[in-house]
Amino acid sequence: LTGSLQQLTEFGIIGLFSQQVGARPAWVSTGIGDDCAVLDLGGEKRLLVTCDMLVEGVHFLSDRISPRQLGQKSIAVNASDIAAMGGEPLAAFLGLGLTPQTSAEYVRAFRDGLLEGCRELGVELLGGDTVATRTDLAVSITLLGQVRAEEVVLRSGARPGDLLFLGGNVGDSAAGLRLLLHPDLILPPEHREALLRAHLEPRPQLRLGRFLASHRLAHSLIDVSDGLLQDLGHICASSGVGARVDCARLPISVSATEAASRSGLDPRDFALYGGEDYVLLFSAAPQDEDQIRDGGRALGLEVHPIGEITAEAGVSVLRDGRWVSPEREGYDHFR
Amino acid sequence: LTGSLQQLTEFGIIGLFSQQVGARPAWVSTGIGDDCAVLDLGGEKRLLVTCDMLVEGVHFLSDRISPRQLGQKSIAVNASDIAAMGGEPLAAFLGLGLTPQTSAEYVRAFRDGLLEGCRELGVELLGGDTVATRTDLAVSITLLGQVRAEEVVLRSGARPGDLLFLGGNVGDSAAGLRLLLHPDLILPPEHREALLRAHLEPRPQLRLGRFLASHRLAHSLIDVSDGLLQDLGHICASSGVGARVDCARLPISVSATEAASRSGLDPRDFALYGGEDYVLLFSAAPQDEDQIRDGGRALGLEVHPIGEITAEAGVSVLRDGRWVSPEREGYDHFR
Repeated sequence: LTGSLQQLTEFGIIGLFSQQVGARPAWVSTGIGDDCAVLDLGGEKRLLVTCDMLVEGVHFLSDRISPRQLGQKSIAVNASDIAAMGGEPLAAFLGLGLTPQTSAEYVRAFRDGLLEGCRELGVELLGGDTVATRTDLAVSITLLGQVRAEEVVLRSGARPGDLLFLGGNVGDSAAGLRLLLHPDLILPPEHREALLRAHLEPRPQLRLGRFLASHRLAHSLIDVSDGLLQDLGHICASSGVGARVDCARLPISVSATEAASRSGLDPRDFALYGGEDYVLLFSAAPQDEDQIRDGGRALGLEVHPIGEITAEAGVSVLRDGRWVSPEREGYDHFR
Repeated sequence: LTGSLQQLTEFGIIGLFSQQVGARPAWVSTGIGDDCAVLDLGGEKRLLVTCDMLVEGVHFLSDRISPRQLGQKSIAVNASDIAAMGGEPLAAFLGLGLTPQTSAEYVRAFRDGLLEGCRELGVELLGGDTVATRTDLAVSITLLGQVRAEEVVLRSGARPGDLLFLGGNVGDSAAGLRLLLHPDLILPPEHREALLRAHLEPRPQLRLGRFLASHRLAHSLIDVSDGLLQDLGHICASSGVGARVDCARLPISVSATEAASRSGLDPRDFALYGGEDYVLLFSAAPQDEDQIRDGGRALGLEVHPIGEITAEAGVSVLRDGRWVSPEREGYDHFR
């Protein structure tokens, strides 16, 4: 390992820290490498732990997201990782870095959004650390959750022949981000609002995750945070399988299609590479498709089959009648 | 709440986030306001959770602490919060913000220090998030630990008549910080090294915490992170008591005394206000003094009685034959 950090990808850095000397103790069910760590501290349930850090200027622009939305989104994106294990969130811990320019009003609005998000998701804010930073606001949240031992769903359980499902639209968040960065883009207000909401106020699919886990329907499960193809790549790498995705079956909203068309872009690129949709991506047995789709509808969700898991490694995408290999992966903060 | 953030102290901000709507659920044994949150998720043990954030330029200067020391100190200061509950640490989660200027060598050395610290303390690093920041390195660690339900020691159990004890020297860390900030200060190398080590490589008193908790000796317990008087103030406020401290009994090292004298300062100020000593401060029944001091010696530690808990509120300090009220509190990041 030599050279500058920019040569390392985010996943390279994570790999650096997961180099393990000796065996993990027995109470570690799952360490680094899934949406949450899974700890067996006794009892019927497993403890789930996830943490995410958001930095101003990198993950958000403080003039494009309100402090209230930032508070709510901070807890929502962590809860999405709990959903991606089939669990329910319990307790949050907040590391908050404030600059000398941060106003007390800003902090109060952030607090309101965070606590409102906690209430909606059934989360207690139980601690944290507030520090001064010199230039950038930083929000670091660690979220604890739990799930019965036999209901934990990992990334690594995908099996050849599984169908691949999405719990909701992909691409709306990327389209919303584009609107934020290109405020001059003209779009009917209902589309604009829908896309901005998808990006600024994501809703983690906790109830869908619990449904899949409690009925043992999902073989593998992840949330779409880095981008559909990148997150699908995580499932494939963990499970030792490949996948095929049919672009024609991707759930892409009219709003995202409209935003893409007015930007001269292909909405399928928003959907495949965009990230931050926080919908669940999972694989399951084909015979369970009806039960899954009915269960989704009972929760007010349309669950979409978008492809299948293959024994052969690699992800292929059917696009305009041709199978192609994705030429680029999702967003990497260090690229 | 109006005006700029600089009008708020760190504790004011923490208060903002601990405003509670409705009762805490039954599984929350202790929320915001102690060294750790205490969660009852079933079983004989309670889960302890603490989180700390360190920001370059505020909490550390990257040219004064090696990346290896920074890694080790990051986990040590969190483990000290677990020690302050009588617990044992288990699992760490790392939020790491890296700037474009951070070298891969720096990250690797930080990683080595962090993992070495984890090994020494019996901690597994089980997850985290690595992000880009624009200007400052940031380290956010959440540490989980556990302790048997009946052995949890809070800040709030101090009783009038208790003796106050310190698990080790206070002031060394503040003296070490002074040496870092005034490199021209001339001091014999053995003193210099001892003080720098105290500041850069603190060792949490986990074994002392376990000893006190498992023998039910400490009525109240905290670690000295903000400064002796400020941390004592936390015990007093939580317990609804006051305290008297005899300056003549404070354990102050020859090294700190020497550094103070060569700086034209009073070493008792390092000891009372300095912070970051990460020794345990606790109160216990006077009749347990011998058992406590013997137990400390068995761990290779000298435990020092420094004063007592009073029914009357407020902290008084006996200094040069006069009882005085501390005129200033410990370090506040926002002042």
